[in-house]
Amino acid sequence: MQVYLIGSGPFDPDFFKGYVERQKVAHNDSETAFVGVDLGAKQLLDMDFPIDLAVGDFDSIEDKVYQQVAKKAASIEKLEPMKDETDTEHALGSVADLYPNARYHLFGMLGGRVDHLLSNLWLIYQERFAPIIDRVHLVEENNAVSFLRPGQHQVDRLKEMKYLSFVAMTPITGLTLKNVVYPLDNYQMPTPLALISNEFLPGQNTMKIAFSNGLILAIQARD
Amino acid sequence: MQVYLIGSGPFDPDFFKGYVERQKVAHNDSETAFVGVDLGAKQLLDMDFPIDLAVGDFDSIEDKVYQQVAKKAASIEKLEPMKDETDTEHALGSVADLYPNARYHLFGMLGGRVDHLLSNLWLIYQERFAPIIDRVHLVEENNAVSFLRPGQHQVDRLKEMKYLSFVAMTPITGLTLKNVVYPLDNYQMPTPLALISNEFLPGQNTMKIAFSNGLILAIQARD
Repeated sequence: MQVYLIGSGPFDPDFFKGYVERQKVAHNDSETAFVGVDLGAKQLLDMDFPIDLAVGDFDSIEDKVYQQVAKKAASIEKLEPMKDETDTEHALGSVADLYPNARYHLFGMLGGRVDHLLSNLWLIYQERFAPIIDRVHLVEENNAVSFLRPGQHQVDRLKEMKYLSFVAMTPITGLTLKNVVYPLDNYQMPTPLALISNEFLPGQNTMKIAFSNGLILAIQARD
Repeated sequence: MQVYLIGSGPFDPDFFKGYVERQKVAHNDSETAFVGVDLGAKQLLDMDFPIDLAVGDFDSIEDKVYQQVAKKAASIEKLEPMKDETDTEHALGSVADLYPNARYHLFGMLGGRVDHLLSNLWLIYQERFAPIIDRVHLVEENNAVSFLRPGQHQVDRLKEMKYLSFVAMTPITGLTLKNVVYPLDNYQMPTPLALISNEFLPGQNTMKIAFSNGLILAIQARD
């Protein structure tokens, strides 16, 4: 199952539509859920997608638009404006409960405000999301971010992207990269560092990464 | 002295022009240097600003444009395409040597590729830039990022922004925020967290932050 969770940030609607189609084919799976977080619910409305769940305090949405969202949404969680968790955090908790075995594609999280972007990266690394983190992807037309915890991982090429970067969010021990243009073997990083613009080997659609300690983002990007 | 270092990412040229004017007034200082990194040199050319220094491998620029840059630039550092440091890292090292007491305003670092953005954040926190880090600002029209190391700091309001966020890049001990809507006193953060959408107190143009351990980004932003 593929869950699409739309936040408040900008992304290209045409890219989104194509991405949803490509995921359906890639995973041979037409089961989907569309979740709108705050302004993201309006974005689903504007793109004429279903709204399986709308989550947020909806402070940034006009009442008229909120009524349209409420009418179309199969389910709504209306949150208090003042709360300890962000709307995105609450929404990710909800989809993890509702659809525990899905792949989660989060749009509207990478453009716009840099503080929101960094907040999204750190919240997804929270311990409570550890059971689903391998299946969370932050995507827009030029960037796709996956979250890696210590261990061995396979990263599959996204056809639409060119570069493959590994950004350490902490010090890292024992980093090994295989099947890429710039491989590494048991590399140590005493301070966090971004290894950018690596690439999959020509003709290869997958690569392997392993490390012992720390947190790493795998980012596929294009200019 | 104000140094403007332009990278390859997108930003609004009109915002840049206004920002340069506002800095001149705010600091009562008309001494400036304009530095273009790779495609950033072309951006200076397009905006009809002087180029005091152009730095990069210039792989992403057509030869014709490179010739125009070379003709206009007072000085050029042409780098090898394959190297251990990024063009931005090399350029920041050069401006730190050339203009050691300046304030550094870096544009074209926040939009575009997320891997580039994170690479820029981590490289500026490198130990070699510790002597200048208090005077480094990453700016575009909706975000302005400053870099804080442990100690006491004053953050001054940027009139064009609305929100004030503090993003921990590491665990943090002893975080105190004064003169803001949501103050904190000796707050502990065992894992990194983004405290977003705080604000300066009404009528106050400055606030104080202190912490004992870790790295924090102060981000002023608007929607």
